[in-house]
Amino acid sequence: MHFPAPLPLQGGTSIADYTLMYETYGVLNADHSNAVLVCHALNASHHVAGVYEEADGTKNVGWWDNMIGPGKPVDTDRFFVIGVNNLGSCFGSTGPMHINSASGKPYGAAFPVVTVEDWVHAQARLADALGIGQFAAVMGGSLGGMQAMAWSMLYPERIRHSVVIASTPKLSAQNIAFNDVARQAILTDPDYHGGDYYAHGVVPRRGLRVARMVGHITYLSDDDMAEKFGRTLRNGDYQFGFGIDFEIESYLRYQGDKFSEYFDANTYLLITKALDYFDPARTFGGDLTKALANTQAEFLLVSFSTDWRFAPERSREIVQALVNNKRKVAYAEIDAPHGHDAFLLEDPRYINVVRAYYDNVWKEIEAGKFDNKARA
Amino acid sequence: MHFPAPLPLQGGTSIADYTLMYETYGVLNADHSNAVLVCHALNASHHVAGVYEEADGTKNVGWWDNMIGPGKPVDTDRFFVIGVNNLGSCFGSTGPMHINSASGKPYGAAFPVVTVEDWVHAQARLADALGIGQFAAVMGGSLGGMQAMAWSMLYPERIRHSVVIASTPKLSAQNIAFNDVARQAILTDPDYHGGDYYAHGVVPRRGLRVARMVGHITYLSDDDMAEKFGRTLRNGDYQFGFGIDFEIESYLRYQGDKFSEYFDANTYLLITKALDYFDPARTFGGDLTKALANTQAEFLLVSFSTDWRFAPERSREIVQALVNNKRKVAYAEIDAPHGHDAFLLEDPRYINVVRAYYDNVWKEIEAGKFDNKARA
Repeated sequence: MHFPAPLPLQGGTSIADYTLMYETYGVLNADHSNAVLVCHALNASHHVAGVYEEADGTKNVGWWDNMIGPGKPVDTDRFFVIGVNNLGSCFGSTGPMHINSASGKPYGAAFPVVTVEDWVHAQARLADALGIGQFAAVMGGSLGGMQAMAWSMLYPERIRHSVVIASTPKLSAQNIAFNDVARQAILTDPDYHGGDYYAHGVVPRRGLRVARMVGHITYLSDDDMAEKFGRTLRNGDYQFGFGIDFEIESYLRYQGDKFSEYFDANTYLLITKALDYFDPARTFGGDLTKALANTQAEFLLVSFSTDWRFAPERSREIVQALVNNKRKVAYAEIDAPHGHDAFLLEDPRYINVVRAYYDNVWKEIEAGKFDNKARA
Repeated sequence: MHFPAPLPLQGGTSIADYTLMYETYGVLNADHSNAVLVCHALNASHHVAGVYEEADGTKNVGWWDNMIGPGKPVDTDRFFVIGVNNLGSCFGSTGPMHINSASGKPYGAAFPVVTVEDWVHAQARLADALGIGQFAAVMGGSLGGMQAMAWSMLYPERIRHSVVIASTPKLSAQNIAFNDVARQAILTDPDYHGGDYYAHGVVPRRGLRVARMVGHITYLSDDDMAEKFGRTLRNGDYQFGFGIDFEIESYLRYQGDKFSEYFDANTYLLITKALDYFDPARTFGGDLTKALANTQAEFLLVSFSTDWRFAPERSREIVQALVNNKRKVAYAEIDAPHGHDAFLLEDPRYINVVRAYYDNVWKEIEAGKFDNKARA
């Protein structure tokens, strides 16, 4: 969907016009009360569920297909689910590789740094266009959870439930440090060309590959890595060179290679900045309770015990701030071995918590109970 | 000291001849019973204590000067302390930047991959040359601790005490993963030139910089980073670009820049491989107790509560294996906030544990009690 009006951005500039790619599942009901917005994390897209075809004809499954679909926890026989690709991403929505109408050339480094809040404002225009005044729920994991949080603060009257999974109220110094290593790997790759590599017919693949490798380590738990890879050698013995000795090396390099072939380096820079900048308490003197004071939604938060990127403690801070505001909040801390990545995986306790929550959201809709002002 | 005889290496090759740079402190006593060997970790050298002058005239303090010196825990008024730079390093001992007598050119990528065990064999020849049949102690932190452990297994009769600080019996998959990210950053830097960058008059500075940044994150604890840097902004507000926003970014980039100016990239590759390969239990079917069965030394182990690189659990595995072998072992787990780097810092409990231990080592020497065969 194309939006011809300029979108003012948190950074002080604006984007003249933009397109958002989105995908929907299920049917919007008569009173438009069953819409669920799914927000993506770093490297995902609007393809949240089902099977879709890539440009090259290969078929892929949506990134949250275990969670969303007919009969699944977010049941598309009940809900009208929208997956949306964010501004600055590289899966169809306006991003750095698209033509900047002001210059006639790809944006490249000229693409503005966008924030979680900017994304939410852009998504709100999509909701307007689709005739959705109020979402039954906005949900997401990790960076997607930040968007679900931001929705509850920026458009409190437009969201009945906020589902925030494996997220955090703000990145720690260590989180930022890892993001900056990734950015430095890209920015110092000679093929980066100041962000305008499109014109040179190259991509900063080496930097992007290293960025993905270091990111990937933070998505897995130490225990899970030990379990999956341990010190298993690829060829039975040490090779005494700098090729592949250990399976973990093979795995990470493969992940890095694959990623560097489909993901845009400028997008990686932008999305890590959006992560770093998210800090809703910042304009409230660091007081998260105050930041969440104007929310009206009910909340579900989920965290995972071995997630050292956004540890359970971080979710508990959000829960505490919501409790301080007397908001209705459900919180599940899942004892799962898979680290941050657990939010994309199949743990039945996790899946069932989300299912039970959405069953109740559905009951409200069936009962016609969806004026959240009454609850505020 | 130059060693003209070839040194056979674990990788199956050998090095034709080599030089080891070393520095000594204190005086070797009449019966040569007061020698202490200090082994360095990734980026350090033979300059363990006191003030020394760099090639450019700047003066620096030894990397363990808080631990070693007159009146210090390892008291150089008592002990004859030797700091030795390892093979493959870049501080004077034979390494990749030195001329390979076989080719007449710098070794570069032709420098053999060396192991902790190779280093220990090379150090043993230095001990021979210095007339030291048996060390009062061999000590080190991190990778240095691995050398102290290897000494106790390879030359059990030549070491009375093994002091192993912030170390591990082997790297985890996560440890290896971080090392491989660092190596990939270097190996894919266009200035790496297959390891023979000396001939091109360049160094793979970008890769080395990223390698150091990611390494540095693993040396600090999450809490310590939060305490020191948190989300403090360099210029008071978000800059909406890819320059420096947060103090942690400034700090890490500075560390990376500095490191890339003095450290050799080939050495970085070699030393991370030595770390990855250390696994003395490997030839004993993974049984660390069996691997340590032939040791005769007494042991001091120290770990730090917030060290997530080589966590206390890893030291406890060593302690348990030593206890299983009925070895005499002291173990201190220091509740310190500084992560892996704590082994280089000033925590008084840590310093005092080491002091007390060496006081006892000294008492043994004064009493003439230093035939460790009697204890085996």
